[in-house]
Amino acid sequence: MNIIDIRSDTVTKPTPAMRKAMAEAEVGDDVYGDDPTINKLEKLGAKMLGKEASVFVPSGTFGNQLALFTWAPRGTEVILGEEAHIVQHEAGAASVIAGVQTRTIPAPDGILTRKALEERLRHRELHFPATSLICLENAHSLGQVVSLKAMDEARAVAKEWKLPIHLDGARIFNAAAALGCEAKDIAARADSVMFCLSKGLCAPVGSLLAGSKAFVEEARMKRKIMGGGMRQAGILAAAGILALTEQVNHLAEDHARAKKMAKDLAKIPGIIIKPKEVEINMVFFAWPAAEKEKTAKKIVDIFAGHGIIINAPEHGVFRFVTHYWIGDSEAQAILAASREAFRSEAAAS
Amino acid sequence: MNIIDIRSDTVTKPTPAMRKAMAEAEVGDDVYGDDPTINKLEKLGAKMLGKEASVFVPSGTFGNQLALFTWAPRGTEVILGEEAHIVQHEAGAASVIAGVQTRTIPAPDGILTRKALEERLRHRELHFPATSLICLENAHSLGQVVSLKAMDEARAVAKEWKLPIHLDGARIFNAAAALGCEAKDIAARADSVMFCLSKGLCAPVGSLLAGSKAFVEEARMKRKIMGGGMRQAGILAAAGILALTEQVNHLAEDHARAKKMAKDLAKIPGIIIKPKEVEINMVFFAWPAAEKEKTAKKIVDIFAGHGIIINAPEHGVFRFVTHYWIGDSEAQAILAASREAFRSEAAAS
Amino acid sequence: MNIIDIRSDTVTKPTPAMRKAMAEAEVGDDVYGDDPTINKLEKLGAKMLGKEASVFVPSGTFGNQLALFTWAPRGTEVILGEEAHIVQHEAGAASVIAGVQTRTIPAPDGILTRKALEERLRHRELHFPATSLICLENAHSLGQVVSLKAMDEARAVAKEWKLPIHLDGARIFNAAAALGCEAKDIAARADSVMFCLSKGLCAPVGSLLAGSKAFVEEARMKRKIMGGGMRQAGILAAAGILALTEQVNHLAEDHARAKKMAKDLAKIPGIIIKPKEVEINMVFFAWPAAEKEKTAKKIVDIFAGHGIIINAPEHGVFRFVTHYWIGDSEAQAILAASREAFRSEAAAS
Amino acid sequence: MNIIDIRSDTVTKPTPAMRKAMAEAEVGDDVYGDDPTINKLEKLGAKMLGKEASVFVPSGTFGNQLALFTWAPRGTEVILGEEAHIVQHEAGAASVIAGVQTRTIPAPDGILTRKALEERLRHRELHFPATSLICLENAHSLGQVVSLKAMDEARAVAKEWKLPIHLDGARIFNAAAALGCEAKDIAARADSVMFCLSKGLCAPVGSLLAGSKAFVEEARMKRKIMGGGMRQAGILAAAGILALTEQVNHLAEDHARAKKMAKDLAKIPGIIIKPKEVEINMVFFAWPAAEKEKTAKKIVDIFAGHGIIINAPEHGVFRFVTHYWIGDSEAQAILAASREAFRSEAAAS
Repeated sequence: MNIIDIRSDTVTKPTPAMRKAMAEAEVGDDVYGDDPTINKLEKLGAKMLGKEASVFVPSGTFGNQLALFTWAPRGTEVILGEEAHIVQHEAGAASVIAGVQTRTIPAPDGILTRKALEERLRHRELHFPATSLICLENAHSLGQVVSLKAMDEARAVAKEWKLPIHLDGARIFNAAAALGCEAKDIAARADSVMFCLSKGLCAPVGSLLAGSKAFVEEARMKRKIMGGGMRQAGILAAAGILALTEQVNHLAEDHARAKKMAKDLAKIPGIIIKPKEVEINMVFFAWPAAEKEKTAKKIVDIFAGHGIIINAPEHGVFRFVTHYWIGDSEAQAILAASREAFRSEAAAS
Repeated sequence: MNIIDIRSDTVTKPTPAMRKAMAEAEVGDDVYGDDPTINKLEKLGAKMLGKEASVFVPSGTFGNQLALFTWAPRGTEVILGEEAHIVQHEAGAASVIAGVQTRTIPAPDGILTRKALEERLRHRELHFPATSLICLENAHSLGQVVSLKAMDEARAVAKEWKLPIHLDGARIFNAAAALGCEAKDIAARADSVMFCLSKGLCAPVGSLLAGSKAFVEEARMKRKIMGGGMRQAGILAAAGILALTEQVNHLAEDHARAKKMAKDLAKIPGIIIKPKEVEINMVFFAWPAAEKEKTAKKIVDIFAGHGIIINAPEHGVFRFVTHYWIGDSEAQAILAASREAFRSEAAAS
Repeated sequence: MNIIDIRSDTVTKPTPAMRKAMAEAEVGDDVYGDDPTINKLEKLGAKMLGKEASVFVPSGTFGNQLALFTWAPRGTEVILGEEAHIVQHEAGAASVIAGVQTRTIPAPDGILTRKALEERLRHRELHFPATSLICLENAHSLGQVVSLKAMDEARAVAKEWKLPIHLDGARIFNAAAALGCEAKDIAARADSVMFCLSKGLCAPVGSLLAGSKAFVEEARMKRKIMGGGMRQAGILAAAGILALTEQVNHLAEDHARAKKMAKDLAKIPGIIIKPKEVEINMVFFAWPAAEKEKTAKKIVDIFAGHGIIINAPEHGVFRFVTHYWIGDSEAQAILAASREAFRSEAAAS
Repeated sequence: MNIIDIRSDTVTKPTPAMRKAMAEAEVGDDVYGDDPTINKLEKLGAKMLGKEASVFVPSGTFGNQLALFTWAPRGTEVILGEEAHIVQHEAGAASVIAGVQTRTIPAPDGILTRKALEERLRHRELHFPATSLICLENAHSLGQVVSLKAMDEARAVAKEWKLPIHLDGARIFNAAAALGCEAKDIAARADSVMFCLSKGLCAPVGSLLAGSKAFVEEARMKRKIMGGGMRQAGILAAAGILALTEQVNHLAEDHARAKKMAKDLAKIPGIIIKPKEVEINMVFFAWPAAEKEKTAKKIVDIFAGHGIIINAPEHGVFRFVTHYWIGDSEAQAILAASREAFRSEAAAS
């Protein structure tokens, strides 16, 4: 039985084309700047985002934290939305690496309004740390896509305050597919962007941090401090290039499949879901009985029996994530398992 | 003309008795533990708070940050209310000294509810920093007093999570006076308490950080790292002892005077104020026209013409603070100046 | 013309076997602990070092700094030799990531004697930070190998002081080959060891940090904070496994070739070199005229004309590094270029 | 019996004139910049050092660490002599507050030579942290005075590298007395100077950090982050002013008394001492038998029996420190006790 893994799009394995490209990649010592494939990827990534330059890093967390470390002097304040990945899921790194005060503000659906921003931005004063950076996230790791208009509003405030914006664009290509624009249209609303080659784009390892030439040059220095200078990294870059040239074209299919999955799940009595809220490749739905740990475990086990790996729900809420390796037959298998898991479960609880 | 200063209670000068005590203080080298007056003050402060020990520090900010530095390992998360002084007015120090991630939660009137806490507390996990500390503030620097019952609710959650509570009690004696209890009743709801000898208590310099013997011993070591080991500090302690034995008895008068001032101001047409919300020695009121900087300046100048120093309003909101040096005649002078400032201003705007 | 690169062993490209292994590697999401090839490599690396566990990291600097971050609480003191790579070549990271005070002591040939250690070790006291860690380096990045006996001396002091030892073993297999022992004999003298799969072992990217199970578990948590959690890292691990099973057997040849190269260079009049001091794959020699930048450049250019890349000398001292891709014909080409470069140069200066 | 304390000059109690001045000091809220006595002291201190401005801090450690925090960006490298107080006796604070890499170099008698400096200074490069600051110490806390010529040598190197020099001048007035120059002649060789009002100058608490207007302004902001903003600090400043106007004139006597004490001690058989090496108010001498802890304790007890407090020796080396409260009769008592302690001890050991 082939395993179907819908815990996240981080589980995506490289494509056969990627494996071939990695095996044949021309490489060099990237710490000396000698790796041609890395150099090619960094140029390509910058170009696709409409930025001057980019630098390869081992993970999305690394790229976000490097951005903070590069923009925000120690002791200053960085403004983020309440549910920002940087604060919620990066292990508190901002207090260690950059050494900054993270200041969260309410951001329903990932949107930082002018009002919310203006209430918390501050200039340096004897009692205050200066705000040094605003962070946006698009697509948001909770599945929402932020409109260009909403980004423009934050951008306008940032300009008035002469503050840079960093975009956590781990899934910027998902956002672009959802908005029907190019990634660079989104990136244009930020001064630096981190985006992942892994996740929905299937590269095994790696992200890029893009921005102005001066910013990337400084980030490259600081990447060394964080231990992210790798040697013949062109092996990974070879897959990254295919992520950007080939895999980006498949994201719309992932989204369509997620939307269809949401509609199908909506037909299962007892599942609480709003199919219209599915914007990218993430399907969230609630099954209240699963708030009990025992029930949750039983459901996860039923899926496992079908060869499907899902994450345990949080407070009764499940997240299913579609990606390149979830085709129509996998989607059907997931639906079948769902019907069993949630029917049986409904009866049991 | 004698200057009347109502910008804050931090402006309070030492009393004649304090000056005499400082001049005659028996002193020694406190870094060696040899200063008898410091030792006496630290014992007295601990006893009044119902704690095992306390350590003298040069300021309230120093004491709060020392508490974080002592409780919270670097990279962990500290939970505080949205408007906590530690996050709002201590220059971002928590990201420098302790190196922690400050995580603010909604806290209307300074109250951290069970619900708000439980939404943000977290155990350490690969992606999460552990919560290491909860901070309360009582009296709150925005003038509110938190009830013992509300503190009990936070305390209960902290116990369930095996988390310590640090209390920013810069004005704990004001809170006690307002609640009609002893300071140690409030302090019993926290594992460590910082409280100021300056501010309403009139000592020129200094605060105490109190807690268990082990906690204070560790804090004493870390005080040295922060440069807070002072030599013949008994000079200051001599005033601190009088702050705790004499001045605490005057706070209720400051509160009564603030309440009366609020009622008097309420009679001036155009002033927006809720006298019932005055709980300690701080009177907040709005004068919408003062949102304009020019108008604000004019008002400040009118007070200055009466020999009264007030802070410029923030977003049209003024704060007047009563203290030991504001007696009945000063209160009358303030009222007279207010009548002139706000009448003339109403006409002008 | 095939380029010959002797700037460092970090320039080594993966072998054909490695490329094949990477293309075919079984992978999973290592952040979930699901990558079978990573798991295999981490077990293998631990076993070869005689340690309970190991964790994969993107670079040697990352691994060393992760070790400090895991062992040494912020504000404590770490003892290292004067020329330790951690202090000299890791961009000051110890002051950022771990936040510790690095304290260097004289360490001729990389040896930390009992006397030198005892002069600087200290217990925590009001005025002192506690020593929390001793770092050794073997082989030293300046080319020396430290004897097991010398390591035993440092080890004995560490035990008396109840201090852990971290070994920067970037080239531990070179040291083992030089000492005629196994890597685990060296590793047994330390509590944690970082060693590189790249460098002389030819893997494109990656190092391992090995130690007790508890240490590695904690390091794995902290790796996430540093942004080192990678996804399908098994691609890289596949090459790493061959580094440890195949490439380790070739290091003795690199050493032999370096020694021969030293003897051959010694015959060129004017070159100052001690062939007997060559212990691993690094040949250091002085050409005093090259202290002048212009002369140095000319020499580098002559080598470049022969298709040979060398680093510019530091204070007239050149370093040539042999590795897997430097066979007999490459060695002869290097010698030929040397004869031309240093003869012509001698005449010119 | 009046206690004679020669453990350090930090034990000095305020003079009667200081007590009177403190009792009568005109004060204000220094966080608002309103304390006239603080303002007067800061101006006076700056003027005496030939600097544009100075800022009051609670301790010497605070002032030194504030200087590092102000000059040296996090992650950069600060160069200091092997025995610098900042590294040796400030509890590792530089790794916490400023977050810098301290790099010690050999500095016999506190002198940093051009050669020693040039071997360690470095420009920022991918692998290197930039040197950001050189620290000197004069008088050195081990009792040596550094000549103006030696300071000039370090100064010249600093200029070539465009690096600032911070001077730990805790005892700069002792150094000036010993060199027969003014404090500002020494201070002219540094960009910032920390000097203590306590220690030999008898003020109970406080030091000043002096430098350019821009430097001091920035330091004032950072002092707040460190919790060093004090309120009616003019109480302490009143004593500080007398320290600078009156007490500085007594230091030469302390030195003379120390020199005489050294000569007298030299006559006691078995004491190892070089009276000519006494430069300021510190007398170091060895009594080899006191390397044994038991013997050391016995000696300390004999002094205690005479009402004299001395520190326990380190490795058999005693330090006696003269100061304002050690007059001729105290010196005689010390000599008498020494004769007893060291005679009896010689017999016993």
